[in-house]
Amino acid sequence: MKFCSQCGGLLTIQVPAGDSRPRHVCAHCGEIHYRNPKLVVGCVATWEERILLCRRAIEPRHGFWTLPAGFMENGESTAEAATRETLEEACARIEIEALSSLISVPHYDQVHLFYRARLLDPHIGAGPESLESVLIREEDIPWSEIAFQSVSFALRAFLADRAAGSFGLHEHSLPPPATT
Amino acid sequence: MKFCSQCGGLLTIQVPAGDSRPRHVCAHCGEIHYRNPKLVVGCVATWEERILLCRRAIEPRHGFWTLPAGFMENGESTAEAATRETLEEACARIEIEALSSLISVPHYDQVHLFYRARLLDPHIGAGPESLESVLIREEDIPWSEIAFQSVSFALRAFLADRAAGSFGLHEHSLPPPATT
Repeated sequence: MKFCSQCGGLLTIQVPAGDSRPRHVCAHCGEIHYRNPKLVVGCVATWEERILLCRRAIEPRHGFWTLPAGFMENGESTAEAATRETLEEACARIEIEALSSLISVPHYDQVHLFYRARLLDPHIGAGPESLESVLIREEDIPWSEIAFQSVSFALRAFLADRAAGSFGLHEHSLPPPATT
Repeated sequence: MKFCSQCGGLLTIQVPAGDSRPRHVCAHCGEIHYRNPKLVVGCVATWEERILLCRRAIEPRHGFWTLPAGFMENGESTAEAATRETLEEACARIEIEALSSLISVPHYDQVHLFYRARLLDPHIGAGPESLESVLIREEDIPWSEIAFQSVSFALRAFLADRAAGSFGLHEHSLPPPATT
């Protein structure tokens, strides 16, 4: 971020009056440009015992498996975002049941929400961001080929709840990636 | 949003290839500038039976009562955001218990999260964004002077759970404001 999106002026980094953090402030018009975490919303959707997974056709993690999920858009609710992403990525129609996982990802400035959901019918497909979609049994989940840590967390939380016969909200904050 | 924050070029509104929505796209460098909902995070914090409320010293809704809450910052978790906001606005130290309300506010492009929390001690104060803070009994809550619909929802959800002796997550999507 180098230029002011309002007037095109050069941005400086400074702590505005009454604030305690450095922000991008326009040297010309004074506009303060805040940067805030983004919401990624998706679902663990099932048809009978099987779970809907998609194989990614895009980077990052092309070819790896994920739950249907994506960036929440302006003008929608979190449940609408999960429903839309599932339709876009897996061509699947769902009914939302309840929020299942809330995962903060501070090092990527994101918060991931995963809903528990029920497929309305077993029709699934591959949207433009997916190579394929599958309805998979728990014992066949390719754990070593899951795209993101938050997806593994949400899947394991759902499976533990299902095994226990009781569903709740699971919260987690992911640590920074290990440096090698 | 008129200028590209990367190169200072003029922005145009167009649907990028592979997308289905109009976005701000730079006519010069091609950068796509997405706009996404912001997270507002706060808490219903209690000391014994009393609830922590703050009276706003800033617009919007100057002089009205609110739960401590504010925009989540990059680099923190949702629970850290609630803890920080409570310290900043009410000078109060809390221990987070669990997520209590998730409220989508589509017409303002926001998602509000409220945690249930316990004050670590009864010391409270007024941060720069508050005129005063109080620990208030349920029967004294000034319902007609609550700043925001989401705050009323979160307070009522908490009070209903406390009366029932069982706490859960309450989800809601606020309708657009009535036009007069």
